[in-house]
Amino acid sequence: MDEITPGAGLGNGVATGRQAATDPFAAFGLPVLGLRDYWYPVLAAWKLRGKPKKVMALGEELVLFRDGQNVYALDNRCPHRGARLSLGKCQFKATVSCPYHGWTFNGAGECVAAIMEGPESKIPGRAKVKSYAATQRNGLIWIYLGDGTPPAFEDDVPNLIADRSTFFTISAWTDYACNWRVLADNWTNEHHGPYVHGNAPELFFQPVPPFNLTLSVVDHGNGRSMGVRGEGGINSAEFPGLGSFPPSKWHRFMKPHGRGVRGNWHETPAYKEHGVQTPTQSRLPGMVIVARPHAEYFLIQWLLPIDANNTRLFNINCFKRMGLWREIKDRVHYALYRGWAHDWIFSGQDKKVVESVIIGPEMLSRTDVGLIGWRRFVGRHAHKDAP
Amino acid sequence: MDEITPGAGLGNGVATGRQAATDPFAAFGLPVLGLRDYWYPVLAAWKLRGKPKKVMALGEELVLFRDGQNVYALDNRCPHRGARLSLGKCQFKATVSCPYHGWTFNGAGECVAAIMEGPESKIPGRAKVKSYAATQRNGLIWIYLGDGTPPAFEDDVPNLIADRSTFFTISAWTDYACNWRVLADNWTNEHHGPYVHGNAPELFFQPVPPFNLTLSVVDHGNGRSMGVRGEGGINSAEFPGLGSFPPSKWHRFMKPHGRGVRGNWHETPAYKEHGVQTPTQSRLPGMVIVARPHAEYFLIQWLLPIDANNTRLFNINCFKRMGLWREIKDRVHYALYRGWAHDWIFSGQDKKVVESVIIGPEMLSRTDVGLIGWRRFVGRHAHKDAP
Amino acid sequence: MDEITPGAGLGNGVATGRQAATDPFAAFGLPVLGLRDYWYPVLAAWKLRGKPKKVMALGEELVLFRDGQNVYALDNRCPHRGARLSLGKCQFKATVSCPYHGWTFNGAGECVAAIMEGPESKIPGRAKVKSYAATQRNGLIWIYLGDGTPPAFEDDVPNLIADRSTFFTISAWTDYACNWRVLADNWTNEHHGPYVHGNAPELFFQPVPPFNLTLSVVDHGNGRSMGVRGEGGINSAEFPGLGSFPPSKWHRFMKPHGRGVRGNWHETPAYKEHGVQTPTQSRLPGMVIVARPHAEYFLIQWLLPIDANNTRLFNINCFKRMGLWREIKDRVHYALYRGWAHDWIFSGQDKKVVESVIIGPEMLSRTDVGLIGWRRFVGRHAHKDAP
Repeated sequence: MDEITPGAGLGNGVATGRQAATDPFAAFGLPVLGLRDYWYPVLAAWKLRGKPKKVMALGEELVLFRDGQNVYALDNRCPHRGARLSLGKCQFKATVSCPYHGWTFNGAGECVAAIMEGPESKIPGRAKVKSYAATQRNGLIWIYLGDGTPPAFEDDVPNLIADRSTFFTISAWTDYACNWRVLADNWTNEHHGPYVHGNAPELFFQPVPPFNLTLSVVDHGNGRSMGVRGEGGINSAEFPGLGSFPPSKWHRFMKPHGRGVRGNWHETPAYKEHGVQTPTQSRLPGMVIVARPHAEYFLIQWLLPIDANNTRLFNINCFKRMGLWREIKDRVHYALYRGWAHDWIFSGQDKKVVESVIIGPEMLSRTDVGLIGWRRFVGRHAHKDAP
Repeated sequence: MDEITPGAGLGNGVATGRQAATDPFAAFGLPVLGLRDYWYPVLAAWKLRGKPKKVMALGEELVLFRDGQNVYALDNRCPHRGARLSLGKCQFKATVSCPYHGWTFNGAGECVAAIMEGPESKIPGRAKVKSYAATQRNGLIWIYLGDGTPPAFEDDVPNLIADRSTFFTISAWTDYACNWRVLADNWTNEHHGPYVHGNAPELFFQPVPPFNLTLSVVDHGNGRSMGVRGEGGINSAEFPGLGSFPPSKWHRFMKPHGRGVRGNWHETPAYKEHGVQTPTQSRLPGMVIVARPHAEYFLIQWLLPIDANNTRLFNINCFKRMGLWREIKDRVHYALYRGWAHDWIFSGQDKKVVESVIIGPEMLSRTDVGLIGWRRFVGRHAHKDAP
Repeated sequence: MDEITPGAGLGNGVATGRQAATDPFAAFGLPVLGLRDYWYPVLAAWKLRGKPKKVMALGEELVLFRDGQNVYALDNRCPHRGARLSLGKCQFKATVSCPYHGWTFNGAGECVAAIMEGPESKIPGRAKVKSYAATQRNGLIWIYLGDGTPPAFEDDVPNLIADRSTFFTISAWTDYACNWRVLADNWTNEHHGPYVHGNAPELFFQPVPPFNLTLSVVDHGNGRSMGVRGEGGINSAEFPGLGSFPPSKWHRFMKPHGRGVRGNWHETPAYKEHGVQTPTQSRLPGMVIVARPHAEYFLIQWLLPIDANNTRLFNINCFKRMGLWREIKDRVHYALYRGWAHDWIFSGQDKKVVESVIIGPEMLSRTDVGLIGWRRFVGRHAHKDAP
């Protein structure tokens, strides 16, 4: 599955007949199956219980299992005869046993028993499966998908996630039928927003955000993240002979608030108190951090490449801890409104367009500056972390 | 999908293991994905409403959209970032806009606005998608699937369709899970009829039509159509040691009428008044015209290659206009009987056999003269229309 | 379908991304699509009635048809135009007719009539399809899947099946989503039993059978079958730092009986009276014969390779004829217990593990001696039968 199937997942009754003739990402060095040597979220923690569980990540098939709060990730194939460990069970504490002959592996991938050969067997100590560092944080299972020594979790993921004393998080996830690079592109380009999300509940009672901005890429200088600064722009336009955008609607009467507001970013608490350089930050290995000016809420959208044609998206909502009553309010607000309005409706609008993309030749323009910047940034910085 | 999948569409739980080792059509020059540079019906007109719609034709993915009675067909892939235009909307009159950033194309495939870049954008006038001539006639959407200047619709399609003052039409359609060439073969060979359609309602109360005819190909001399003349033949036979065909049935007592009748074609109104040279005419780019002797009704079966393994068949029933009461009678008769008896049951019998064909080596015989003539005719005349 | 699809049939929503890099069977000469030149069961006899029926075997597509108790098997593709004979009908006695033009073939694959060409046609005597020897025995349809002269059925299949005066049989079947070689492996290796089948109803109230046996391969000297002798072994073990196997359960209090018993095989009626050399015999072209010491019951598990990724398994239960009352008892016992306990539950446990295997590199050990012996045996003896 390291070949791109155009239109995979669209559920078309009839295949498209279209081949991805060229891969515009390849020129920038963006691999089809995702960037290795990073921590990734892979699964909601509550989905891993007493039984081993298969997950796909970066085109590989892994098995997860847990011992209380400790979680482990191994290659899913038993080296003995090739059976899937994920169909086995956690026979002994902190191990997974192959369903076929009970070869039993600990979290380091070491065979600690070959049950059907008895305790005298010579297999333990010889057999081994590849293991991956894994941890459970923020209600998610995270795996270091790489081959060398993993960096500390706290050094590799944003503070918003790692620093649980300052922020708490609520996460949702969805699988997208597209290559990860098409989804990451979507985040570096402010210009689809007013068009794709024009009718999103979050923007319903306010003008659409500006478009036709003049963009410049802001390298945050940390080797991990960059942003795109937009200046100028317009909120509506008349297209001669065609009509106006956005179409006038009865509900567009309010002043901008929330996402719709544009002020001087350098005057915001987000910048002044927290040093957030740009309202959105695209970050390796494939995420976007969306800041609010007041810096009391951040949204992290973090993708996990599943295979060449599928990507899992985690929406990690980060709320600043501001006392018990505020936390209750934030959780109720998420449950009743934000989870629906953003993680379901707003993200669903992106899902529709990115899943519709047929990878091939492109015609980029001045409003694609952010996307070009991102692709270059990845080509330059991937695998060379400086957290 | 320009590779033939044997048995595709048969819904077998288990794949067949059989490969199409040889393609007997290739020797005659019949392309897998259909003949280009012809008008084809692609969709019932009522299925195209205010939203753009995807269709597959000749292995290509197109988007249709309409402005009142004007219909347009473009390549479905936006040149900007590759999103499918068919998932966009008709934002402005007589245009389709890409769902991602609102690049807007008119029916000629010219970009007339890049909405997210505002009215000053340099993209319009530069970006372009391939467009196809399209028209709405006889309740169907037609596209000229070719690359050069399209001939006038009236010059390319049979008069039965183009001349709406003399004929009115009622159309039905079905998708076949077979390559188009297998379906076209089916029309040039009278000899499957008595066998495949022996129990069709149309032939129920009459003898089966003759078989074992002596065939000769009749080139109509117009570069577009040919027919097959059958002479002699038998209506039943005793096969020594086996039994008789057709098996005697209680309902075979009536004299032939309708399709069962065989007279001297040159005495019929169809020939004398309308110059119809043969009762069935196989015609480029892939259709058969079945005439009745009285010339008051014709059936056109017109195929649209979807991809290598799927073909859409339009049954276009052409009725001579003979006054209001006769039209009402014809429409009621179609609704109550003919639509069911022919377009559903009779065509369904063909569907079953052509979908069962595994393309590969053949052993043609004297009764396949029509089929050989058709394949040769296509090889000689395709792309060189003389309407 | 002569390519292995790893994980095919597992019903995963997302493909695995794993390729079968190496095929450990190839080194031994075990072909992907099964061993030719043997009789195989292909279908329950009651499933073949008055209509022709398609079956897949060894990667080929065949049509079966019957005339009373006589059954016939032909290649499923009509040589005329490639239609599937299985969609035709048995128009005349002991023949199948193609659905397209009525080319009619007898059980030898000879065309005996080309119905649409009448009785004078030159086709009969010229057209031919490949035919396979076929017979109906023990409630199953059997085909000799080979190219030369078939050996007599009685000489090729075990006496337990061929000798109907001594044994009667009851058969069940299931399709496995795995390559046949993975299933055959499963039978030569005693060591998965205690692990995979520990909770099988057959073993519920008794200790698990011994594991960690010392194995030796017993060539039965007939060129058709071999067995594996196991000596020593243990019934339970404590794994330091992990725990014990099997886990103690309330129901493990009875003494071994049935499958659980281990005695001196050379003292049993099976050996002394019937010459059965080993309790289980792996036999070409892909079956296992499981004997009971009392020799009143045998189970034959016989596989039919369907294609590279699918295998049909027949469980043929062989009961010694010991009078009417005993036969009634055996049949009732099968209907009420054994069919469920073994053919459904016990075999289903094997199905789960063999379907989970990803063919690739292996790490075989001392308890895989039987499997290595079997692969070598096949490589040495396949196609060189000495029945």
